[in-house]
Amino acid sequence: MTLDELPTPCLVLDRAILQRNLDTMARALARHNVPLRPHLKTAKSIDVARMATKGQPGGITVSTIAEAEYFVGYRITDILYAAGITPQKLDRIAVLNGHGADVKVITDDIEMAGIIALHNTPPRTLIEIDTGEHRGGISPDGPELMEIARRLGPALTGVMTHAGHSYAGRTVADMAAFAETERAGITRAAARLREAGFAVSIVSMGSSPTALHAANLHSVTEVRAGVYMFGDLFQAEINTHGLDDIAVTVLTSVIGRRPAEGKILVDAGGMALSKDRSTDSTPKDYGFGLVLDIDGQRSLGDANVQRAYQEHGVIACDPAHAIDLPIGGKLRIAPNHTCMTVAAHDRYYVVDGSDDVIAIWPRINGW
Amino acid sequence: MTLDELPTPCLVLDRAILQRNLDTMARALARHNVPLRPHLKTAKSIDVARMATKGQPGGITVSTIAEAEYFVGYRITDILYAAGITPQKLDRIAVLNGHGADVKVITDDIEMAGIIALHNTPPRTLIEIDTGEHRGGISPDGPELMEIARRLGPALTGVMTHAGHSYAGRTVADMAAFAETERAGITRAAARLREAGFAVSIVSMGSSPTALHAANLHSVTEVRAGVYMFGDLFQAEINTHGLDDIAVTVLTSVIGRRPAEGKILVDAGGMALSKDRSTDSTPKDYGFGLVLDIDGQRSLGDANVQRAYQEHGVIACDPAHAIDLPIGGKLRIAPNHTCMTVAAHDRYYVVDGSDDVIAIWPRINGW
Repeated sequence: MTLDELPTPCLVLDRAILQRNLDTMARALARHNVPLRPHLKTAKSIDVARMATKGQPGGITVSTIAEAEYFVGYRITDILYAAGITPQKLDRIAVLNGHGADVKVITDDIEMAGIIALHNTPPRTLIEIDTGEHRGGISPDGPELMEIARRLGPALTGVMTHAGHSYAGRTVADMAAFAETERAGITRAAARLREAGFAVSIVSMGSSPTALHAANLHSVTEVRAGVYMFGDLFQAEINTHGLDDIAVTVLTSVIGRRPAEGKILVDAGGMALSKDRSTDSTPKDYGFGLVLDIDGQRSLGDANVQRAYQEHGVIACDPAHAIDLPIGGKLRIAPNHTCMTVAAHDRYYVVDGSDDVIAIWPRINGW
Repeated sequence: MTLDELPTPCLVLDRAILQRNLDTMARALARHNVPLRPHLKTAKSIDVARMATKGQPGGITVSTIAEAEYFVGYRITDILYAAGITPQKLDRIAVLNGHGADVKVITDDIEMAGIIALHNTPPRTLIEIDTGEHRGGISPDGPELMEIARRLGPALTGVMTHAGHSYAGRTVADMAAFAETERAGITRAAARLREAGFAVSIVSMGSSPTALHAANLHSVTEVRAGVYMFGDLFQAEINTHGLDDIAVTVLTSVIGRRPAEGKILVDAGGMALSKDRSTDSTPKDYGFGLVLDIDGQRSLGDANVQRAYQEHGVIACDPAHAIDLPIGGKLRIAPNHTCMTVAAHDRYYVVDGSDDVIAIWPRINGW
């Protein structure tokens, strides 16, 4: 089967680019001798998880309990569920751990720490630390840290942080600075806990930009990152990787032509691409995605998806690169934000540098 | 089961509000004695389709072939696939029609019209007319109309248009004006074809705002509309319905509290809500969604989701309506754009004016 025969819209995953991205991250962390706990929130695929954990200890990060359940089903047991746990979700985690998994949870809440400790089978728990993102997490320096640790009791296993604010950086130097703030904060939290007599075996930090560009990961026990596997236009704009390192694209068919207006309609709209507009804040704005030819090459200049209706995408063509395709002709769209784009799809059609489809890898969605 | 027991994030569909919205549309069209071909692109559910076709001829509109396949599986056979057909998609339609379905397709392309006519089993085809949206469709007044009709030959069944540009309107008077332009254009196209000797049995127009607010639907044989069933914040802002007529909300749990900043974190982020920001162009901007209490009431003032990470939503609370909920406490989020929001979910938890879950209705996604 070749790309031209696939039903559209659908996801195309280039395994060669994926492998290159995995190798880049592995090399970046090997400099520091720190292992990776890959975040599967983007890929949500056992096939990708196997590639991403190769040469690493084997643990993963997930963003939903549905992901945890899916990966436990494939016998990946060392899992960090990296969104704040709730009482109700503790019960679903307990079922997995009752079947031999070691799903760890996070909290930044004093009351919730007490609820975890009182559960029949408390999961191993990391305290979430805020090192500048100001989304979840407590200060590494305040009194709450000690109070949460005290309440967790034997469930306390470590600390974690996520420098999501690194996405505001635009250069490699920015990212190294964010990484050092992240590292300093999380290791300070770990040191305070240890000084107070608590056992802290996991000191976990990470985001794709800071994982790749950290100059120092001293005292960190693991790094988490996810979007680096596939990459996207936003990550290319913030120098996490190059424009040729985007492993996932959306294959689409021409469904309408308006040559007088320099526009074509394709069957990848807001559903297939997502409504994410991350690149509206970066130097180059790619609309709802950059248009590539069926071979994944940038032969169409800066053509991008300017409007995304539910099932219609409107491509504006640079006159120098007018797209002369018949109805049904195929294009590929590089996504703004790959995590959001892949979520509308239930499988990857895998290629390896050519237009031959060498595998179909299912992925899961939902909660 | 009650809402408080549901795993979050998930969709809550209030059947009473849905029924009210269906009744409103039925009354609006009954004034004109024009039947409805409800668009299932939003609901994608057989249970909703059965409610929406009640008292109507029974035909539906779909936005993907996956929807067509799903509904044919439930013996709905009169279907209009309302996005431009491609050669490859013709084959999937032919399979359905070979099993007794009557899936009609649309085109606005001269070459494609010839390909349809030459297919082994050409589906009945409507010519797409542009009445001002400038997305798909040809002019009702130009020479292409006759050429496409001639090429289609016996496959030609009618004409259709979609006044998607009505979404730029903000008042009921605006919508009535858009509706008249839509009606005038599509009936002019039909009249030209008939004068030239072509049989035109379907003259189809519609968008939720123009369907509801049209003053005259003379010579139109059917109206299509979809989002009116569930409604959303955008449609409320453009006066398609009121703020209390939004039938679908996202149930979410508190996963973090930052009282000093007037913020709480919930487990409905960009995945559960979508990244749609339709209300950034309307008088009131609701961020990524309006926050309701678990009973669906607006007791939290203007609290809305200000940031949407992948699985985290950040709610900014009006100080007068601070949200004092524990971790795991439930809220509901009214969506900006319901079509996009529901697409991340595989089922509706149905209520009927209370917090008792009376049914679970599956929905389909993908292509």
